[in-house]
Amino acid sequence: MKLVRFGPKGQERPGLVDDNGTIRDASSLVADFSPETVSFELIETLRKADLSKLPEVPGDTRIGSPLSRIGHFLAVGLNFADHAAETGAAIPSEPLIFSKAPSCLNGPNDDIIQPRGSVKLDYEVELAVVIGKRCDYVSEADALSHVLGYALCNDVSERDYQKERGGQWLKGKSAPTFGPLGPWIVTADEIPDPQALEMFLNLNDERSQTGNTDTMIFSVAKVISYLSEFMALEPGDVITTGTPPGVGAGKKPPVFLEVGDRLHLGIEKLGEQRSRIVARDQA
Amino acid sequence: MKLVRFGPKGQERPGLVDDNGTIRDASSLVADFSPETVSFELIETLRKADLSKLPEVPGDTRIGSPLSRIGHFLAVGLNFADHAAETGAAIPSEPLIFSKAPSCLNGPNDDIIQPRGSVKLDYEVELAVVIGKRCDYVSEADALSHVLGYALCNDVSERDYQKERGGQWLKGKSAPTFGPLGPWIVTADEIPDPQALEMFLNLNDERSQTGNTDTMIFSVAKVISYLSEFMALEPGDVITTGTPPGVGAGKKPPVFLEVGDRLHLGIEKLGEQRSRIVARDQA
Repeated sequence: MKLVRFGPKGQERPGLVDDNGTIRDASSLVADFSPETVSFELIETLRKADLSKLPEVPGDTRIGSPLSRIGHFLAVGLNFADHAAETGAAIPSEPLIFSKAPSCLNGPNDDIIQPRGSVKLDYEVELAVVIGKRCDYVSEADALSHVLGYALCNDVSERDYQKERGGQWLKGKSAPTFGPLGPWIVTADEIPDPQALEMFLNLNDERSQTGNTDTMIFSVAKVISYLSEFMALEPGDVITTGTPPGVGAGKKPPVFLEVGDRLHLGIEKLGEQRSRIVARDQA
Repeated sequence: MKLVRFGPKGQERPGLVDDNGTIRDASSLVADFSPETVSFELIETLRKADLSKLPEVPGDTRIGSPLSRIGHFLAVGLNFADHAAETGAAIPSEPLIFSKAPSCLNGPNDDIIQPRGSVKLDYEVELAVVIGKRCDYVSEADALSHVLGYALCNDVSERDYQKERGGQWLKGKSAPTFGPLGPWIVTADEIPDPQALEMFLNLNDERSQTGNTDTMIFSVAKVISYLSEFMALEPGDVITTGTPPGVGAGKKPPVFLEVGDRLHLGIEKLGEQRSRIVARDQA
């Protein structure tokens, strides 16, 4: 099942995608998809719905982020060996964890705003995990049972803010629009193996990133289990799990995003995003 | 005005503290104090209430955290020059920012749970700021106009997780109960100068931390203005602004918290917290 939110920014309604790819308005079944509502019980309720009886949403309707807000927006750094190598970093011996501001959440095809003074804006195609059930100290074997679903994420980054402004990565990962998520959350039952998904990102129609989640250093299950030793994970938390090689900072010479650039990214079974870069004061 | 939440854990109700220090039940005026409800408009509404007409809450009622949840839980590291020195760190040239998991939020007098295997559990008395109005790129001069109020915070830390588990501090700042906040939010009008507040923390009745917010390297206004260059701040976000000297990791030899230890901390005008350390599997 695919959970989606559609409509103008700030006024999105919840929907489900039917077998023909048409969005059906599910607002008669659930108020919104949010940390307060997403749960395995909700999925069971939605699964019983006859989608053909829900109103069709016109195909040109804007798609928003599939959650109204994120509880805790977590991310794994350097989780693909060949990406770690391109950044000149050592392969981490345990998962490198950072966070993104929840206020950076963005629709999948919305503009990405370059902050004032930014000179090292970069992209990262990533597999994001949406938590559906609270956990701490969860074993690796049991970790995936806490995953509500998966979504495509662009872990937009400002490399100067991330690495040259005082140590913690948060500063370079959190500007408004730095967290495009979606187009939808694909429920976990449709992704039996999250470690076998093709990933790509094109910059201005040229292939920049190509990867597969099978080359992650730390699997989704391992990341969840590991994180849950340090903090409780809650429904509506999102963990984006790292990017394959090909980011702008890793190219020789580096290639950073500029106003007007276009991104097109996707992950097998999870859909695609298309966005363009705009300046802060034009947004 | 003092905003408080009272009652059993998970079932707290909103209240206000009257001139006699008695908590009055404000649930007839607002559903809860949360990121969805806290705003300057709410404060104006509450200010008009006749507290003497609201039900009195018995004095032995448990006090919870003054917000039901935190949007983004931000923190400033090494923001007191003498604390930076005791940790052996250089004085930061710009604010060092990290985050805490929102799920670490804890009542002011609730037990603090030592995670499994933790050997370097530590305390930090801090002034926390509650944001009341969205902002990005706010000037230092205008920053304090976005502060709904102030609260006492204990930035509980596990130093081994913070510094020896892969680089980012988040891991050592986020375990359940690592964010005791309160007893209340004191609205900003009652704290005309946040840079003139005495702070203390006692460990087992012995003074461990003594400080004053007048020795912060980066003022509250500067921190808010600075953060807002990197991310949007939203109502219900909490920024805890750093600790004065005297943390356990800074003592020679270091003194870390053990099960059974008792903490007593306070900040002038913001009240006090009393908590004790319990083991994860006894909690």
